[in-house]
Amino acid sequence: MPQSLSPRTANYHIIPPRAPRGALTLIDRHQPGLPEQRMKRIKTAIVGLGKIARDQHIPSIAASDAFELVAVASPHSTLEGVPCFKNIEALLQAVPDVSAIALCTTPQVRYELARRALEQGCHVLLEKPPGATISEVQALVDLAEQKGVALFASWHSRCAPAVEPARAWLATRKISSVSVVWKEDVRVWHPGQHWIWKGGGLGVFDPGINALSILTRIIPGRLLLLEAELSYPSNCETPIAARLLLADSRRTPIRVELDFRQAGPQSWDIDIDTNDGRLSLAMGGSVMRINGQAVATQDSHEYPLLYAHFATLVRERRIDVDLAPFQLVADALMCGRHVTVEPFED
Amino acid sequence: MPQSLSPRTANYHIIPPRAPRGALTLIDRHQPGLPEQRMKRIKTAIVGLGKIARDQHIPSIAASDAFELVAVASPHSTLEGVPCFKNIEALLQAVPDVSAIALCTTPQVRYELARRALEQGCHVLLEKPPGATISEVQALVDLAEQKGVALFASWHSRCAPAVEPARAWLATRKISSVSVVWKEDVRVWHPGQHWIWKGGGLGVFDPGINALSILTRIIPGRLLLLEAELSYPSNCETPIAARLLLADSRRTPIRVELDFRQAGPQSWDIDIDTNDGRLSLAMGGSVMRINGQAVATQDSHEYPLLYAHFATLVRERRIDVDLAPFQLVADALMCGRHVTVEPFED
Repeated sequence: MPQSLSPRTANYHIIPPRAPRGALTLIDRHQPGLPEQRMKRIKTAIVGLGKIARDQHIPSIAASDAFELVAVASPHSTLEGVPCFKNIEALLQAVPDVSAIALCTTPQVRYELARRALEQGCHVLLEKPPGATISEVQALVDLAEQKGVALFASWHSRCAPAVEPARAWLATRKISSVSVVWKEDVRVWHPGQHWIWKGGGLGVFDPGINALSILTRIIPGRLLLLEAELSYPSNCETPIAARLLLADSRRTPIRVELDFRQAGPQSWDIDIDTNDGRLSLAMGGSVMRINGQAVATQDSHEYPLLYAHFATLVRERRIDVDLAPFQLVADALMCGRHVTVEPFED
Repeated sequence: MPQSLSPRTANYHIIPPRAPRGALTLIDRHQPGLPEQRMKRIKTAIVGLGKIARDQHIPSIAASDAFELVAVASPHSTLEGVPCFKNIEALLQAVPDVSAIALCTTPQVRYELARRALEQGCHVLLEKPPGATISEVQALVDLAEQKGVALFASWHSRCAPAVEPARAWLATRKISSVSVVWKEDVRVWHPGQHWIWKGGGLGVFDPGINALSILTRIIPGRLLLLEAELSYPSNCETPIAARLLLADSRRTPIRVELDFRQAGPQSWDIDIDTNDGRLSLAMGGSVMRINGQAVATQDSHEYPLLYAHFATLVRERRIDVDLAPFQLVADALMCGRHVTVEPFED
């Protein structure tokens, strides 16, 4: 019954004019099933109503033809026009037909909520980092497998428009060295986010893991952490800055500088020297240059692309959990030299 | 040609009178091949000539019919009666037919040495912990697979005599709670071992990982770290004490107390309450009691059993790398709350 498709639902089957190509696409041309099944939106709830939920998840769900936001849970905040609950338990009781849950809480509480959602048979999207520990995410994978539902440990920076073109370009070149500079003013980007300074909050690795998620996508093979120097403010449990030395499987040196004490504009830059010149990614993977020449890329649609990929995972009841970026952070925190620096006051 | 077997070589095919049963056995009754092949010893080198090499590895190799010690490498120490080299490079050049290498260095330098040995086509035994990071051990697994050689990330405490009996007993019971107390005087057990206080040295997790290696062997399913409180001396990069809350897949609470500040005798105890009473392991898995009644176990042969298992891995060119204990430590260090305590002076 194609005539029953609303224009918006119909869009679900059309590539948006400027959609990036690559691993993630906004559509699935070959989706099986009847038109009625195709147009059914995935009833979705957001748990955790902080900055990232409001800035990215809510607009992306609103713009998506695959999802509809049916509820939110947050202990202190509400969202106009959507049923709001204090916690996931109340949400699941009041809205038993919720099918997918996007977990936008702080990482420290993500595991218990994800577990509860999976036990209820919901598909789950995890914001980055996917938890406070590696083992708990592995346990979620086990549970999602048992329940036959989708689980997506999302890395939004991997959906930045220059990432897939960079990956393709690098696949046929020999990399000789890599330099990452990821510096931002924590007071601008994480105002009042005290959780970031508590164990499990990752400190400067909270943004730094975005760089690692790009590196682990575009550089072939496994990356290895060789050295780490971690600067801990005397009053914090997590580092405010870090210098890492990584290597790829060919022992190419990869130097990473992370700093939360940047004044002025942020630097989210990756420079990769190869036998064929230098590839530069700037602005968190949004801009690509080869030997200084800009390469045209699509506009940025990180979260819409995440949700498009999540829609595919839900349809196919698949699990997409790549722990490589998180493991590198765990490794740095485990083996790093510590430097104590001045206390941080927000 | 059975008459050519020396009594010692012949023992290789006989269960020693008090050998423990379980996952690891000192023999392989079904080993194929001619007697000449069977009696060939594996030419073995030790790299890193510290306390654990002298206390355990050298006597275990000397007592083994599967291995013979042909060289050692150490920058500062030598061993009488065995060719000694300053480093692994010199050793590999001078003794090109070395077949297996036991890495008994501090964990911080283990990866590069293991990589070099594997690249040379040697089988490798890693002391615990198997490295300074998880990723580097995963990279060693990749390399061992490529080279078709054996790689063994050893956990000596799993060879303690009560471990396999405890595992068997627990397999048919329902566990309700677990308590681990692992406390020792660091000045007695790790005199002058400054590496333990540096990043990658793990601090109190260096002994504590022995308890975790037993727990992850005897409790069915995956263990999860839920909470950690880490006590860092103000002058150290690694914790001197830790309190952990773990859970198994049924959410059974597992409380772990680790402390390096024990005065007097060490406590290496695990108590497990079940629907059928309490199982207690004492003395690091050497002693087993059920409801207070001692259960007879074999004498302790931890390192001989490790080497027997390594011999099997070498023969079959297999990899045995279980990262579960190490991952729990990484998780604790990543998500733990920090407490600063008084400086540690050795």
